[in-house]
Amino acid sequence: MTKKRVVIVGGVAGGATCAARLRRLDEGAEIVVIDRGLYVSFANCGLPYYVGNVIQEEAKLLLATPELFRERFNIEVRTRNEVTAIDRQACDVLVRDLEAGRDYRERYDALVLSPGAAPIRPPLPGIDHPGIFTLRTVPDSRVIREWIESRNPHRAVVVGGGFIGLEMAENLVHRGLDVTIVEMADQLMPPLDPEMADFVRRRVATHTDHLQLGDGVAGFERAGDGSLIVRTGRGGSFGADLVVLAIGVRPESKLAREAGLEIGERGGIRVDPQMRTSDPRIWAVGDAVEVKNNVIGQWELIPLAGPANRQGRVAAEAICGRDSRFKGVHATAVCGFFGLTVALTGATERTLRRAGIGDFESIYLHPGHHAGYYPGAKPVHLKLVFRRSDGLVLGAQAVGEEGVERRIDVISTAIQMGATVFDLEEAELCYAPQYGAAKDPVNLAGMIAANVVRGDVDLAPWSELHTAEAFILDVREPAEFHAGCLDGAVNIPLGQLRDRMDELPRDRGIWVYCRVGQRAYYACRLLRQHGFRVRNLSGGYHTYRAWYPEDRVHHGTT
Amino acid sequence: MTKKRVVIVGGVAGGATCAARLRRLDEGAEIVVIDRGLYVSFANCGLPYYVGNVIQEEAKLLLATPELFRERFNIEVRTRNEVTAIDRQACDVLVRDLEAGRDYRERYDALVLSPGAAPIRPPLPGIDHPGIFTLRTVPDSRVIREWIESRNPHRAVVVGGGFIGLEMAENLVHRGLDVTIVEMADQLMPPLDPEMADFVRRRVATHTDHLQLGDGVAGFERAGDGSLIVRTGRGGSFGADLVVLAIGVRPESKLAREAGLEIGERGGIRVDPQMRTSDPRIWAVGDAVEVKNNVIGQWELIPLAGPANRQGRVAAEAICGRDSRFKGVHATAVCGFFGLTVALTGATERTLRRAGIGDFESIYLHPGHHAGYYPGAKPVHLKLVFRRSDGLVLGAQAVGEEGVERRIDVISTAIQMGATVFDLEEAELCYAPQYGAAKDPVNLAGMIAANVVRGDVDLAPWSELHTAEAFILDVREPAEFHAGCLDGAVNIPLGQLRDRMDELPRDRGIWVYCRVGQRAYYACRLLRQHGFRVRNLSGGYHTYRAWYPEDRVHHGTT
Repeated sequence: MTKKRVVIVGGVAGGATCAARLRRLDEGAEIVVIDRGLYVSFANCGLPYYVGNVIQEEAKLLLATPELFRERFNIEVRTRNEVTAIDRQACDVLVRDLEAGRDYRERYDALVLSPGAAPIRPPLPGIDHPGIFTLRTVPDSRVIREWIESRNPHRAVVVGGGFIGLEMAENLVHRGLDVTIVEMADQLMPPLDPEMADFVRRRVATHTDHLQLGDGVAGFERAGDGSLIVRTGRGGSFGADLVVLAIGVRPESKLAREAGLEIGERGGIRVDPQMRTSDPRIWAVGDAVEVKNNVIGQWELIPLAGPANRQGRVAAEAICGRDSRFKGVHATAVCGFFGLTVALTGATERTLRRAGIGDFESIYLHPGHHAGYYPGAKPVHLKLVFRRSDGLVLGAQAVGEEGVERRIDVISTAIQMGATVFDLEEAELCYAPQYGAAKDPVNLAGMIAANVVRGDVDLAPWSELHTAEAFILDVREPAEFHAGCLDGAVNIPLGQLRDRMDELPRDRGIWVYCRVGQRAYYACRLLRQHGFRVRNLSGGYHTYRAWYPEDRVHHGTT
Repeated sequence: MTKKRVVIVGGVAGGATCAARLRRLDEGAEIVVIDRGLYVSFANCGLPYYVGNVIQEEAKLLLATPELFRERFNIEVRTRNEVTAIDRQACDVLVRDLEAGRDYRERYDALVLSPGAAPIRPPLPGIDHPGIFTLRTVPDSRVIREWIESRNPHRAVVVGGGFIGLEMAENLVHRGLDVTIVEMADQLMPPLDPEMADFVRRRVATHTDHLQLGDGVAGFERAGDGSLIVRTGRGGSFGADLVVLAIGVRPESKLAREAGLEIGERGGIRVDPQMRTSDPRIWAVGDAVEVKNNVIGQWELIPLAGPANRQGRVAAEAICGRDSRFKGVHATAVCGFFGLTVALTGATERTLRRAGIGDFESIYLHPGHHAGYYPGAKPVHLKLVFRRSDGLVLGAQAVGEEGVERRIDVISTAIQMGATVFDLEEAELCYAPQYGAAKDPVNLAGMIAANVVRGDVDLAPWSELHTAEAFILDVREPAEFHAGCLDGAVNIPLGQLRDRMDELPRDRGIWVYCRVGQRAYYACRLLRQHGFRVRNLSGGYHTYRAWYPEDRVHHGTT
């Protein structure tokens, strides 16, 4: 029996994992990893923190060296070698040795493509001026570090307000720069629903110089002093000593495309559940492939390390004849900046609408990350999206200072296992005063949603607040009402409601709110049993401020 | 239609939740809560922290007052009233007004018992000396605070090294006292398996004066200066200015027992899934009832706030004619002290063995709570217990400084949903450098366990380390080996293993270990494919030190 020869193109995340897993399964295989970069198996997710000098040593980013691959796994790693073509008939790849400048061929029995995704660098006027950076590799981050350390820049413009953009903003602020963020969407963190992104905007605004939302970069110019001027489509102009482009990535599917492999509609390599491409001897993994989103049932590009690693394992197992399958994703992600954590899992309202799915409902809550009676509780702003008809959990978004990733991890696990909001109600989660609450935020989210699915309470749509004909009832205490309320709201504190029901209309819908939604829910149950047509404005005044940040604050008078 | 009259005995946790839920479901019901204490709806879990002055205001502990119940929920709360008997024929209870000293009867259509559990106070010699406390109520904690503040004690003995005992020890140390812990079991935190408890012991030992394990209190004496002497069964004697008894709680089932309601074998009130006792008009919830542990299939006493609250809701819903069910527990719990977090969910090896269940396996791992390349990663010591035959997740225990409760919450959710270790492998969890890793500790636990279930690696039993005939192979680097190794181990670093296989026996089992288990796993895969009979010592040297803390450290020589 001749030895199986596996060639892996790209040695980061998915490719590196695939190689190591292959060795564990097949001590006899010949495994060659070919990467055009200087390094394999480096920590891409750490690069912004290396720029920010939070991670101080470059060596920390190198998770495994070619030497380690050789010694530990008997795997040959060739860096600075680029695969430029695949000959599917001959089962070989054309490789360019970038150092020696020569081409050679490499035979494979199985080929794994793990080329990753490249930062988008649009062909804007002036894009090639010095000082305009993208971030993908260790050398990329080293160049930005050197720029900062040698030129002592004061002003940075970060183009893109998503995950990488905000991490870069955080790290540049950490380095002492004044940062402006330019984002094409009307919100930061475009994967979030807009009202949840408003919690992000508020925090980022207090740590940056300027946020330019709903505007794109039109071009770059050199100022007289050698610095840059960033011009936007809406006529904005921002001086910068340093620009970072973080407007997304594009799958590196050129090699696969030129080899005639099937490419999906989002531009990624199309694979089956065993990560096999349209050629049965070629597999593909990582940021270059399209994956099936299990919640909305559509193909997506999900450039995340976790799925890439799992895909690498699946490909290795498939190559070794095992029946492993990649089951798709529901896209759990987290990002931290300026003391805030933002995390999400599954579908948002936006992704559901885009996918044409209408059977869903959303609730909001703003509980403390642990029991309020123990000092130091921080609010977790949480939105849960679930199927209206049966309560299946579809997604969640959370923003806060503490405990955010924990709740999203629990809900992600619930989504993975097909849980409903009734399961979230009953989740048994860690509770001691400094860790949670007898009713954890996840339990509360489940209870609030379950009340909706069971029909115990109806939700008022926040989106229709300013057009609805409803009677707006504020059941908070007068001091809260006077400090800020919804326009036109009438204040009857919950404790007085049973005695003052004659002040409420019976011929009109009543929309109730309080601070975070709990008292309003009590009021809804009360009023409904007395025959009123009543709905809850989920999450109360906290949610209102996120939905309508531009509204002036109304000070209620009674 | 006459109004339904519901009497609830006990207004903390389950009782309070039941009352509030009843009101939301039935605006017309008459709801009376009767509690012999001064307060209802207080935060029992916060009491140790009130003693420790971490929670400084007593008012913080009072989550809801009788006035709030009346105003907000139209619920009548009678504190300092004690239900002393139930007349099931007449459907009324005998109540003693403890202030007025008179008895009266109260009719019910539905009766809910939520009497809780009382701290055990064994009839030891000298148990009634002043300065020996238990902790259940707000006044209990106030008395200990006053003792500390008026007498300025220096030495405390905490009897019991479980959850409450360790929280009390932490809070007394926080108050500046020297603390001795006396625990009957051979380990702290008896719900943990002993080797996992060793991580706790090490931490607690550095913050306390003395740990007396495997020994019980025999009695208390007064010293000449008025302080206490705690005598133990093994002849120990510890001076104390303050003693806290935290040796467990006993369900308050006397009232139910005297009324002829069915009592379980653990001494708790027996209920059906609707929390109904053997009398169809009487429900029971909270620490006084036995609940079904879903993992081991047995009745247990689980004095936790989360289940109590859920039970209160279920009882309320059942009383209102809804078909809600309490689905049992798998007992998730967390405790924090001296900078350490300990959490567990589901079954331990001990509970499985006690239940006569043998189809299980355990693995250990010690990963960082976030990516190692980002500064500040702290180890999470994690043990996962799963069904050997199919990989069903049965339980987990974790100890560490950061991220412990998060992993246990995820695994708890997995257990709730019937997940297997294969599901844990694929869990999509939050990853950014400061939050986790591309392979989260939960994923790693799933992978390690899945390797066992799939038969890719066999585990060596730590319990047989000192009696086995195996060849012990250490695949760490020489410097690690020399710093401390297993007795008799032979060192061949992983990177040299392929070239030095002729040094290994083919006629004997080989047990492999490294620092935490990863390199040993690689070695197992390698050696197995070369025909060796090889097993992994799960979790490596870290696990060894927990299993055999008394072993002197062997310094390997090569």
